[in-house]
Amino acid sequence: MRNVTPDNITDTFLSYFGDDTDPRLLEIMTSLVRHLHQFARETELTHDEWNKGLELLRWAGDVTDDERNEFVLLSDVLGLSSLIDMIHSSEQGTSSSVLGPFHISNPPAKDNGADLSGEHKGETILVTGQVKDPDGHPIADATIDIWQTAPNGLYSSQDPEQDTYSFHALFTSDENGHYRFTTVRPVSYTVPTDGPVGTLLDATGRHPWRPSHLHYIVKAEGYKTLVTEVFPDDDPYLDEDTVFGVRSDLVMSYQPQSADSFPAEGYELSGKVSSDYSRVDFDLILARDSD
Amino acid sequence: MRNVTPDNITDTFLSYFGDDTDPRLLEIMTSLVRHLHQFARETELTHDEWNKGLELLRWAGDVTDDERNEFVLLSDVLGLSSLIDMIHSSEQGTSSSVLGPFHISNPPAKDNGADLSGEHKGETILVTGQVKDPDGHPIADATIDIWQTAPNGLYSSQDPEQDTYSFHALFTSDENGHYRFTTVRPVSYTVPTDGPVGTLLDATGRHPWRPSHLHYIVKAEGYKTLVTEVFPDDDPYLDEDTVFGVRSDLVMSYQPQSADSFPAEGYELSGKVSSDYSRVDFDLILARDSD
Repeated sequence: MRNVTPDNITDTFLSYFGDDTDPRLLEIMTSLVRHLHQFARETELTHDEWNKGLELLRWAGDVTDDERNEFVLLSDVLGLSSLIDMIHSSEQGTSSSVLGPFHISNPPAKDNGADLSGEHKGETILVTGQVKDPDGHPIADATIDIWQTAPNGLYSSQDPEQDTYSFHALFTSDENGHYRFTTVRPVSYTVPTDGPVGTLLDATGRHPWRPSHLHYIVKAEGYKTLVTEVFPDDDPYLDEDTVFGVRSDLVMSYQPQSADSFPAEGYELSGKVSSDYSRVDFDLILARDSD
Repeated sequence: MRNVTPDNITDTFLSYFGDDTDPRLLEIMTSLVRHLHQFARETELTHDEWNKGLELLRWAGDVTDDERNEFVLLSDVLGLSSLIDMIHSSEQGTSSSVLGPFHISNPPAKDNGADLSGEHKGETILVTGQVKDPDGHPIADATIDIWQTAPNGLYSSQDPEQDTYSFHALFTSDENGHYRFTTVRPVSYTVPTDGPVGTLLDATGRHPWRPSHLHYIVKAEGYKTLVTEVFPDDDPYLDEDTVFGVRSDLVMSYQPQSADSFPAEGYELSGKVSSDYSRVDFDLILARDSD
């Protein structure tokens, strides 16, 4: 096309595709470029503005390394990661929510009733629940991968003071689908603000906070893998999670309990709890692979 | 918002903006995120597909340095750079076209009639033209910044064999608005293909070629700066420029001339041309600042 115009450039772009382009790649690139072109037309984007955007991407590249991926964080704070989670979340099961960048492969297997807190001080929470199918039948032998921040707001991979597997554990549901453990309550924390995402949040008057949460990956044979989080219903950032991870069915009441009500057996901390604690019940409904 | 859904996440994103956000930034981010969300919904983009996109951006960051900016190249091959050029191209003047990454600041000033080819062999072209206002009146003392590839298809910044200012020059229009110089004909060339842009072009069945062109930046007091290119009308890639830079009014006939017709004076090469050459006339119409 030797007479490219603002009106025909999108079609010109589409005309360049080879006949043997993978049909799904063709569909994705067609939609992406139609939307990017329309964005430029609609805003009459200037060279200076576009260059600022390209500089932001270059800066994201500069701060990205094996421990930190600013492109993922950018996708998170624009709501794209959560939107993709929701598009593929099954209506038959518990809602999915953001994986985030802090999951570690091969977390240590622990028995039900184990405690995750180690030497860390904080409010003890007792977490229980049942893994179930969409009809309410228990799923035994499901693996439940749990990770969270320490009370200082840092995940182990961010914190040289913590061991690699600190606040990471893998449980297995019992014959009735139940799981249980204790830990210290995770805290609200901020996403990293010293890169382009922090600058963008600041320029748009947004805070960088996420509400407190426990991360879950739940797997069982014959069911779709569930990546999700559970949030306490009294967190101040519940309605303004900077990465848009909160769903109604993931918000649970953390119920205060007196120290003397702590179970006398079945927990690593049984007989050792001398302060009041909280209890959260979080059932996990897995959609069938075939749904 | 604690009940984020695929339908309300865009509005939730918009509700996060601070009241004192710059109105233009608000407009740009609103349009960008509306379009990105709609893209994800429309294609039902999967986690794997989105991760491939984020990996491509990370790879672009890895190959970007002071000499090469893969984010700019990505914008170029998606047609975004050219679309932005066209949106802001004045209808009163010559069409603008892509700046590209190879312009150098402070090119050496040359007198009209100078030759740019140095020791490089190739077909001589004689380039002339007039800088004019939209009513056809000549503009004197306009600066005309010219750059191009050497006959090997490389710009000086890509080629350790060339001096820094090889094939870069700054001319000034005379009292009648005229400029003139000789050089060797620039060649068609490929954009870099060893990064993510090359992989994307390959996956979508596209070639990486640009038609031969001379780059121009034309400046005159009281007029809008013109960034443009001129293309020969017989280039095989004229209808499929991989960065969408060709416009009808930038395509010129490079007319063959016999050696003995070369002007006897007024050119650095006068009296030295022994082969046939080509002649291209390219007038430059500048829109007024006030338009």
